[in-house]
This record gives sequence, structure tokens and C-alpha cells, in this order.
Amino acid sequence: MASDRTVGLLGGGQLGRMLLQAANLLEIKVNILDAAGSSAKQISAHDGHIAGSFKDRDAIRALARTSDVLTVEIEHVDTYILEEVARDLGVDVQPAWSTLRTIQDKFLQKGHLLERGVATAESLALAEPSRAELERVSAELGLPLMLKSRREAYDGRGNFPVRTADDFDAALQALSGRSAQGGLQPGDVLYAEKWANFRMELAVMVVKTKDQVLSYPTVETIHEDSICKLTYAPARRVSSATNERAQALARQAVACFAGKGVFGVEMFLLPDDTLLINEIAPRPHNSGHYTIEACPVSQYEAHLRAILDLPLLAEDLELREPSIMLNILGGAGPDSHIRIAREALRQRRTKVHLYGKGEARKGRKMGHITICASTMAEAEAILAPTLALVDGTATPQSSHGSESPSKPSPLVAVVMGSDSDLPVLEPGLKLLTQLGIPHTVRITSAHRTPAHMAEFARDAAASGIRVLIGAAGGAAHLPGMAAAHTWLPVIGVPVKPSIGDGTDSVLSILNMPRGVPVATVAINNAVNAALLAARILAAGTDAAALRARDAVRAYAADSTDEVMGKDARLERIGWKDYLEGMRAK
Amino acid sequence: MASDRTVGLLGGGQLGRMLLQAANLLEIKVNILDAAGSSAKQISAHDGHIAGSFKDRDAIRALARTSDVLTVEIEHVDTYILEEVARDLGVDVQPAWSTLRTIQDKFLQKGHLLERGVATAESLALAEPSRAELERVSAELGLPLMLKSRREAYDGRGNFPVRTADDFDAALQALSGRSAQGGLQPGDVLYAEKWANFRMELAVMVVKTKDQVLSYPTVETIHEDSICKLTYAPARRVSSATNERAQALARQAVACFAGKGVFGVEMFLLPDDTLLINEIAPRPHNSGHYTIEACPVSQYEAHLRAILDLPLLAEDLELREPSIMLNILGGAGPDSHIRIAREALRQRRTKVHLYGKGEARKGRKMGHITICASTMAEAEAILAPTLALVDGTATPQSSHGSESPSKPSPLVAVVMGSDSDLPVLEPGLKLLTQLGIPHTVRITSAHRTPAHMAEFARDAAASGIRVLIGAAGGAAHLPGMAAAHTWLPVIGVPVKPSIGDGTDSVLSILNMPRGVPVATVAINNAVNAALLAARILAAGTDAAALRARDAVRAYAADSTDEVMGKDARLERIGWKDYLEGMRAK
Repeated sequence: MASDRTVGLLGGGQLGRMLLQAANLLEIKVNILDAAGSSAKQISAHDGHIAGSFKDRDAIRALARTSDVLTVEIEHVDTYILEEVARDLGVDVQPAWSTLRTIQDKFLQKGHLLERGVATAESLALAEPSRAELERVSAELGLPLMLKSRREAYDGRGNFPVRTADDFDAALQALSGRSAQGGLQPGDVLYAEKWANFRMELAVMVVKTKDQVLSYPTVETIHEDSICKLTYAPARRVSSATNERAQALARQAVACFAGKGVFGVEMFLLPDDTLLINEIAPRPHNSGHYTIEACPVSQYEAHLRAILDLPLLAEDLELREPSIMLNILGGAGPDSHIRIAREALRQRRTKVHLYGKGEARKGRKMGHITICASTMAEAEAILAPTLALVDGTATPQSSHGSESPSKPSPLVAVVMGSDSDLPVLEPGLKLLTQLGIPHTVRITSAHRTPAHMAEFARDAAASGIRVLIGAAGGAAHLPGMAAAHTWLPVIGVPVKPSIGDGTDSVLSILNMPRGVPVATVAINNAVNAALLAARILAAGTDAAALRARDAVRAYAADSTDEVMGKDARLERIGWKDYLEGMRAK
Repeated sequence: MASDRTVGLLGGGQLGRMLLQAANLLEIKVNILDAAGSSAKQISAHDGHIAGSFKDRDAIRALARTSDVLTVEIEHVDTYILEEVARDLGVDVQPAWSTLRTIQDKFLQKGHLLERGVATAESLALAEPSRAELERVSAELGLPLMLKSRREAYDGRGNFPVRTADDFDAALQALSGRSAQGGLQPGDVLYAEKWANFRMELAVMVVKTKDQVLSYPTVETIHEDSICKLTYAPARRVSSATNERAQALARQAVACFAGKGVFGVEMFLLPDDTLLINEIAPRPHNSGHYTIEACPVSQYEAHLRAILDLPLLAEDLELREPSIMLNILGGAGPDSHIRIAREALRQRRTKVHLYGKGEARKGRKMGHITICASTMAEAEAILAPTLALVDGTATPQSSHGSESPSKPSPLVAVVMGSDSDLPVLEPGLKLLTQLGIPHTVRITSAHRTPAHMAEFARDAAASGIRVLIGAAGGAAHLPGMAAAHTWLPVIGVPVKPSIGDGTDSVLSILNMPRGVPVATVAINNAVNAALLAARILAAGTDAAALRARDAVRAYAADSTDEVMGKDARLERIGWKDYLEGMRAK
């Protein structure tokens, strides 16, 4: 086994199940405390599990006695019992019980962050769940505000948006039932948060080991009815500067808490690009499911490695490929989720995870799917039919048409300023087809459709294009202008104009200023532009790159054979007959 | 659940365990027939398992009664019992019992393939295990030959190489013990195979579904002491033509057998590049372990999808990244394998699989590791310290130096024909460093070191280089010659010679013949060559590509800021003061 230490896990839901999948790979023994037959217990057959509630003192003590390290898949545990077993039985609790205690009370969590200078929404506790108190905090924070239960709140349960004073009573009524739970003091029930008018939600999984704070990529999360629906890794349409700040903020936030393990950090991105921490989960998190397929080491394995002091490196958390995760929720019917899972199985590159939770309820997390692809555009295209089914917008065609191989999305865009350049491009376009490289051909002029040209170049990368080829003659601005609007490599083909020898086209394309390169090929040499595009694709690492590599090598081998064959014939028949044969053609 | 049908599995070793990992993801119920606590049963907790031997008639009948589909993780099962339960109980056996019966007898397997025109080594059965028979088949097949047990042979057990007549007695003695097993007829014990003097072993996992025969990539397998030690996916140093033939041969071979499921096809590549089938396994196979991390759908999930008629697409079997698998075998000491697993955990991007098999014996398969990386060269570098430990060649330094981040291997090679070009390249080299792109700088002349130049260009891709930049002046052959020796993209920087304006350098680099492209930038513009290299890297899809993409975007943003800043200053202070400031510099 990778570690001699036994882990005790409070909670055996889907997060526990995925933690067990990672533990099984490493022969790490995990004793699970939860009801018999729970999701996680289904995939771990040994007699060390404990049947019972993870809120039960005796059960937790029994777990602590048979485990070296206690950890949680849910933060809503009794931290006083954890404190007690850590002290009395010497069991290692990770993350620290003090961390769980602070985080499980969202108001304490916010205060803990604000005291340490970590950006998060301003929050005020209500001294009691009353209209008077709600009036007081509204006056201070302004309206709208978000009224929240301090405890036991997740997936939007326990949140109520208060837009105007008319919402006061409804809000208190909606959340008042929660005050009865667990015999809380009136001042521990509710708090109000200043409204964050965010334009996007981001999340970062952070791993705290004994001596490092590491982070997974920044992902974009899409919530529906306050439940996480989708994550996009990496986040789409986020600048690298914002990404860096999100990474730093997430690590800064997690560094404030004691203990080891993974933490899910949810953030708001505001219209002015500032970031605010929304919430922190001291455990594996829905927004990190994608890491199972998309990263060398998943959040679950990272959690185990962190709490057991096994090695972990920053490179283990890098993204292998762009990835989308879609939650499969219980739906209208008892098998709505099964229909979604089966549709997903019919799509290429789609990994289906089902949690073994048995009966579905509406909104219950029954599973998820993860799609990894070479580009986010491709992942989105693969997801489309399943997402349409989830959203109820699937047509019989779209949900059944996908078993036939779909047309691959173009990797190379060939643009020309005028259709008069098309005959020059013809041999290159034929070659791209022969090499099996999916491509698109467009007309867009730097001078006659400058806005359209700019838009096309700007959007090319997001649509999955990896290389642009631009053909132009004379002033020949198209390749250089396209290069100014994209970070993709741009190849320029100088086209010989009807007047002159084409030197003007070459120089216009070649002599780009420092900072904006164009890969220039010889006059009218569309074949070499196509081959250069193929070589650029081949320099990548994914399946499309490997296909391009094979195609480039096969082309080179054919060229060698062709020349060798000509040489053999020349030697055989002599130069005079050879020349005659050439002239006869 | 993804399927309503229950699978009955004969055998619960490591292949069964990995099959269960896939089944757990899809909520597919699998009843396992094997001893209690077997590797596979450890990760599946329900009361449908059957304790017993997968050779026991009653146990198999019990399994058949509670399952809809029976499958195997080992082909050495009693196919007469399977035939019986298929007939009497109507259970679906996949692959077909007839296929298992043919394949489990290697002589029948070979004959089955030869009859159908599938290339495999010529084989002759011995009418009895005797010296006379061995003499007879030697005369026919020639020496050396491989003497093999027809049944119960795997991982080299049951094979004996017969080099000369002096080996006859030893061979018969080594394999005679096997004739006693199972009361075989004398003619069913041994057969001889014509010696295959292969230069390489390849393997392809093939999936036979209800209506398709699909294949995973061709991998290279390295055996040691007749046990699979390593697989490289894709196979290294194999031409795309050979790869195509290996794929076709593997599919052709599997198409000859009835039933559904995955099949492991092992092949020999002979010195003349012809391929021969070595053996076929009608089940998941060691040479397909890599698919768990390296492909969208693993061989295990593919097996389940195939036998349960769930969808599967060719794209589900593509390689996401180059990958190496190393078996972890029981070693000299009882915990030798644990030491290997722990060393592997310390290396980046290394996924460790342990099988829960308890006590190690020398040569017993205890686990494996899989490394996926952007390039095979990187995967090999990551594997090196673990492999050194396995091979007993690890030094204390090499096994402990790897926790510190290793120097990344270069992605860009900058070559110049003469050190006089170095000052021209300086701004480009500085920019590569600033962009965080690992690179190497070399001097190699097309004219003065033509062989070295060719070798460097040919080996560049295998060493992990993705882009070449070549600088040259005057006749300026270096970029074009480098491009002729590699399939990588090559960027040419024309260097202005001491005499002339540099047009000669530009034209020499630009005017490459059709078929061998060079991406030309402007005279002396090393900065644009560096940026073009960064854009080419950015067009990829792996972590290195995403880093390059960020760097290119950040550079563009800085350039924009710089020009905007200058404009603001010009507007503020007026053109006269601005010009004066410029002149004062």
C-alpha cells in the first residue's frame, strides 16, 4: 500500500465514493462512517466500515479508534466531537477541526477571511431572525442583499435574495425553519451579505499539503436554481491576468486555514474584473470533478496525498486538455437521469459517472459527465446533444444523429482578400484535403471588410482554429492584420499580382514589425503554406496532432519515393529519352 | 444504471479489479466468481458475488443463474461448462465459449488464424511429448524453434526456446509436468512454433462490438523474463505504414472470432517490417492498462460497453497523450514493490495502480504505473528515476533529487550556422526566456557540419523539440536543410550579411521548393521568430501550450499598453517636446 495509515471518512455520499475510487487505486484503507449501502461503501468491501450517522458521537469515536487520520466529505459535522477525539484518542483530524468549525458557519468563514485581508463580500449577522434586525442590516448593507443561513446551507438551500423591503417577511419565513435545527442561539441563525452583482462565477480547487499550497486551474461554473450545473476548465473568456488573480486569491484564502487537504474556493468575478470569495468548502468539491479525467492527479487523490503526507507536485494539478463537467441531476421522472446518462454514453469522448444513489429526487445529484477534448470548442460541440436533452431542447434528430461520425471542426482557416486569389490557393486546399486536415476557406478583406476581418481573426481560436493561412497580393495586408487580431500562428502566402513580379506582395507580408510575426512562404506557394500548417498542427500533442504528424511524414516519404523513382528511370533510360519523354507531355 | 443487465465475471484478479472500477462508474452490477477477498471483490460490496473457483461447475452454474451476461478475465476456464450454461440456462457468454475454447489452446488458436489467412508463425503439434516427435517437428520447422504448452500458458510459463538438438531433453522435461494437468491427451500437450527473429513486439487492443471491430493505438511492448514490463503508446520508431498494417492485422485477427468484448493482440515486427500475430487474449490485457488514463474510454469500460451493447465510437479509443505503462512486479524482498510504488508517487504526472493482492512473490504483478505527458520524450524523462529503481541502477541522488522541480526539457531549438549570427538572435533568445519558453541554442552549419546538422534536425522531434528556429545569412541554407530532415515546423531568420542588404538571405530562405516549407520572418527579426515559435506552441492543447498561449497574450497586452502609453504622452506633452525627449535619449 502507498501509506500504512488508515483513513476514517465522515460521510459516504458521492464525494466519498470518488475519494474511495482514488483510495482503491493506491490500496489506501478507508473506514467509512455512514449508513449501510451508502454510495461510497458500495465500492469498498471490508469490515472496517461503521454503520451510522456521521453526526453520532459514539460512531465517530468508534471511527477514530480504528483510524489514523479522520477526514470529511461534508463540513456539516459536529466539530466538538472531532476536537474531543483528536484530544482524547490522538487521531489526526484533517483539515483541522478548527477549520471545519470556522467554515461550516458561513458568517464566521467570511469574518475569518475579511480579518486576514482576503476579498469577500461584506457580511453582518442578525442578532435574531427578526424583521427589525433585517431592517437594520439592510440599512447598513443596502438593498438588494442576500439573506443566508449561517449553517447547514449548500446548493442554494438556506439562501434568500432580498430585493426590496417587500421580501423581508418571505425571507424570514423561508429561512426561519432552519433556526429550530440543532438548538442554535438566535444570533447564530442568519446573516446578511452585501449583494455581489457578478458577471461570472469562477472556482479553484486548492490543495494544502504539509508544506505547500498548490492550485488546480481556474474553472468557470454555471449554476442553475443555485445548484452547480456545469464547469468549464479552463474558464472561458477570462484574461490571463484575471486567471492569475483568481489563482492567487484562492491560494491566499486557503492558506488562512489550518490543516491539510483539498479546498474548493468559489469566487465571483465582478463587472470591473475584481474578484470576491463567495464560499470555501474544506473538502473535495463539485467544481473539481473534472480533475478525474482532466488532470494527472484528481482532487480526490490529491486530498488523500495531502492528508497522508504523500508527495504531490504542482505539475500533477495541470490541465491535460480542456474539459467540461455536467452534473446529472434527478429530474421530472424517476429515470430522467438515466436517460441523460444513456444519451451521454452515445457521445464521443464522454465519461459518465453514476453515484449508485438509487432513487432520484428532483435536483438530487445522481452523477456527472466529463468531456475532455483538444479544444474547448470541440468539447462544447460534443456536449451539445446531452445538454439539449438536459435543457429539454433536444429534438429527435439531435439526440439520435450523433452516432454517425460528426464532421470534425476545422483546425485551419484559409482566408483570402479576394476570390481572385482562389486559383493560387487551389493546390494548397487540395493538399489539406489529401492530408486529412479539416479546414475552412473564407473571403475577408483587410481593406474592404476590415471589421469582419478583425472579428474573424479574433474569434478563430475560440472556434477551434489552430492555424490561419492568409493569401494576399500587392499591398497584401491581410496576413499581417489577421496576426494583429489573434494569438494564433498566421501563415502568409504572397500572391503574384497581374502587374509586377510579386516582390511587393512578399515584402508587405514579410516585413512585419517586431511583435507581430507572420510566417511567410514563397510567392504563390500555397502548397508550402498547407504543409507548414500541417507541421504546426503536428507540433501539438493531441490526437489531431498525431494524425497531422502521420500525414506530414507520409507526404515526405511519398516525395522521396517520387524523386528516387525519377532518378531510377533517368539512370535506366538515359537523359536523352527522359528529356524527350518530358517534352512529349 | 447504464445497463439493466447483470454481468457475471469468472475471475477476480487485477484485470477483474480494473473491470470493476469501470463498472462502478456506470453502476453496472457485476457478480464475481473467485475466492473471497480477491483483488476485484475488494472494490465491490454487494451480496451477489460467489466465493469459489472459476473452474468449479456448480459455482459457474450459480453465477450463470444470477447473471445476464457471463464474461472472463482469464481464458483458462472450462469452456464445456460455459457451453452448457449458455445452452441450459440461456445466459449470454461473451466472448463466445467457442472463441475461448479456440484461443485457450494456442495451437488451435494459431491454426484458426492460419486457416483464415491471418499472418502468424507456422506451428506443428507434437503427437506426444517425446524426443522423436520433437525431432520430427524440428526437421520440418528448422532450429531454433519455440516449444510451447498448448494450454494454461501465459507470462512465458509454458514456453521453452529450443536452439539446438542439445536442448531437446531439457525442453521436454521443463514442459512435461504440464502434461499431467487436467488429464490431457498426449497429442494436446505440446506444439512447436517456427522461430520468429523479431526486432520489436507490438500490441493492439481490439474491441469487437455487436456491429463493429474498433482498435486502440498500436503500442510497443518490452518484455523481460517473458513478462510484460513496459508499454509505450504509441509505439516508438514505428513508421506510419507499419502502424497502419499492425492496426489492420489486429482487427483482421479479432474479426475471425465469434462474440463481443476486448481482445489483446500481441504481434512480432520482423526485421523486414512484416508482422506476425504472436498471441491473442480474449479479454482485457496488460498491454492495454495505459488506456485508463491515455484514452477517453479505457479497455475495461470498452469491454463492458461491448458485451452489454452500449454505444462505443472509434474516437473513444484515440490516444489523448503519449503514454508509458510500467508493471510493478513482486521483487527480491516482500516490499520491493512498495518501494517502487512510493518512488513513482514522487514523480510528476505518474499514476500509481496497486491491485490489493497482498503478499508479493517474485515476478507477481502487484500493480502498475502510467505516465501521460505531452511528448514521449517527457514521459520517458519522468519514468527514468522509477525505472532506474526497478532495474537496480538507481543512485541515491537520482532517486531523491526529483522532488525539486526538474528543469523542463526544451520545446524550441534555435540553431545558427555560425556564432557570428548570435548577436542577431540575442533579442529573440531574451524574449523566449521572458515568455518562459524552455529552449536550447546550438551552432550547426549546413555547409561545414552537414552530417551533424542533419542528425540534429532528425532527432529534434524525438527529444521533445516542437519548433526549430534557424538563422542564416547569404546562401542561408540552414533553415531549409533542417526542414528537409524533420517534420517539425521550421522558422527561418534571414541574417543581414556584412555585404549587401540581406535580400540574398531572404530569398534563399523564402524560396523553398514545394514540399518543404520554411516559415520566413523579416531580416534580423529574431523577436518575431521567437513570437512565432510561441504562437506555434500556443496552437497545441497541452499544459505547455496553454502556458505559451498566456505568454503570447500577455506580450500582446503589454505591447498595446506601451503604444497606448506613448500616445497618451504625445497627446499630453505635444509632438515637439516628445521629439526632443526622443532625441535626448
